[in-house]
Amino acid sequence: MGEENIIFGINPILEALRADRFFERIYVAKGRKGKPIEEILALARSRGIEVRFEPRERIEQMARRFVEESLLRRGDGESIPRSPHRPVAASQIVTQGVLGITSPYRYLALEELWEEVRGKKEPPFLVVLDGVEDPHNLGAILRSAEGAGAHGIILPKRRSAALTPTVAKAAAGALEYISVCRVSNLASTLERLKEYGLWIYGTVPGAGEIYYTVDLKGPLALVIGGESEGLKELTSKKCDFLLSIPLCGKIASLNASVAAAILMYEVRRQRGIKLG
Amino acid sequence: MGEENIIFGINPILEALRADRFFERIYVAKGRKGKPIEEILALARSRGIEVRFEPRERIEQMARRFVEESLLRRGDGESIPRSPHRPVAASQIVTQGVLGITSPYRYLALEELWEEVRGKKEPPFLVVLDGVEDPHNLGAILRSAEGAGAHGIILPKRRSAALTPTVAKAAAGALEYISVCRVSNLASTLERLKEYGLWIYGTVPGAGEIYYTVDLKGPLALVIGGESEGLKELTSKKCDFLLSIPLCGKIASLNASVAAAILMYEVRRQRGIKLG
Repeated sequence: MGEENIIFGINPILEALRADRFFERIYVAKGRKGKPIEEILALARSRGIEVRFEPRERIEQMARRFVEESLLRRGDGESIPRSPHRPVAASQIVTQGVLGITSPYRYLALEELWEEVRGKKEPPFLVVLDGVEDPHNLGAILRSAEGAGAHGIILPKRRSAALTPTVAKAAAGALEYISVCRVSNLASTLERLKEYGLWIYGTVPGAGEIYYTVDLKGPLALVIGGESEGLKELTSKKCDFLLSIPLCGKIASLNASVAAAILMYEVRRQRGIKLG
Repeated sequence: MGEENIIFGINPILEALRADRFFERIYVAKGRKGKPIEEILALARSRGIEVRFEPRERIEQMARRFVEESLLRRGDGESIPRSPHRPVAASQIVTQGVLGITSPYRYLALEELWEEVRGKKEPPFLVVLDGVEDPHNLGAILRSAEGAGAHGIILPKRRSAALTPTVAKAAAGALEYISVCRVSNLASTLERLKEYGLWIYGTVPGAGEIYYTVDLKGPLALVIGGESEGLKELTSKKCDFLLSIPLCGKIASLNASVAAAILMYEVRRQRGIKLG
């Protein structure tokens, strides 16, 4: 699990959720029902925590592997042989079909982020990342976004770097100050942002208007593509405008965190400085 | 030596230099004199290759270690015991007090870079890096510089990342297209650039004019500070103007490659696009 930790069992998970502990993801056994499960699902939904439904055996396997690994880790780097004297029997692990991977960082739900954004003194300025998978890039984007005075970052739950200590380090402290929201479905989120009155600006190398020729002072979300394939087709269809950063040489694209910073600072240049 | 290779002995080094092979650095034994040594020094100087003077024993030690390591490496990862049947005797290694570390990349001398820059259709646009030590940052800066249509990069020989395969990878191909010059003394290089008619713009977080309020259309060099201490004092004294990128939140600085990109693209925005 590396940087994360896990919690399993209905009551431990419920207690952690009620205590406002953050989860990267919660696994629930397929077909599992009942009031406590419904409460877990509702709390997870309201906090922007991803929920995955998996066969119960897989969840128990994950718990078993985790317990074994933490036993192994206890030995100061020495591996402890799984002798019959130190068994990790399946019967000892009671997941009750629920397992959560905790996170030291908090994600906002879209509604929470929107509440914050509405309270700002300037038109909304959000940044949406469509598949930025490199944690150093994500960290650098958080840092630049905080510097440029963006109001928040929206990430998809899948095919995206998540907030980990590596990201926090690359963000050089900015993670403490910028709001990050994770969503299951980027396309429907962009629709929602349009309902909130935002214009959606996608960035595509070599297509669309040159970024600095476009008025970026109104309420907007900048959508930045990932390292490998840029904006996904479904995402770019949801954009109201496409922007491009001109490339004057022979290379075909810029680094994702560099492109994001150039665009965010163009928004700031046009709007004027807002300090503090 | 990792990514590099070495050559030693007067004639091997001279031949390599005459054949226009690139060196990262050449070591010459202190007090070593004579016509061939002078020719080596002159060729190294004209190509922007760093020369270091070291005690002869140290140079012979480096050669010995290198030969031993390459013997070890030959064994497909198996270490070959240094048995009496395979000795690396000091007497077998004849450095003649000269040893060069080769480089797969070519640096231009300042005069060569200037010849290129003079031939451009717009006022000179150079980027000077004062202590960027992270190879990923250097690679990202080369990539953005090529994209923004900068005319070349100037690096100091000391306390700076050099062009290595890691940098080339981060540059995503841009290293093939952008000229890089290495200099021994950044302060005197900035003086030289002023003689060439360039204005020197340093960047200091929180000091100087906001970058987009300044006219950047004339002949100029942008000086970007390193990750740890930003612009060195001597460097910032040589600058004609200081620019800053406003930070609207709580963090104190941006990533060096992000700051460089924002400034380079502001130059490009003001000058207008130059494609191809």
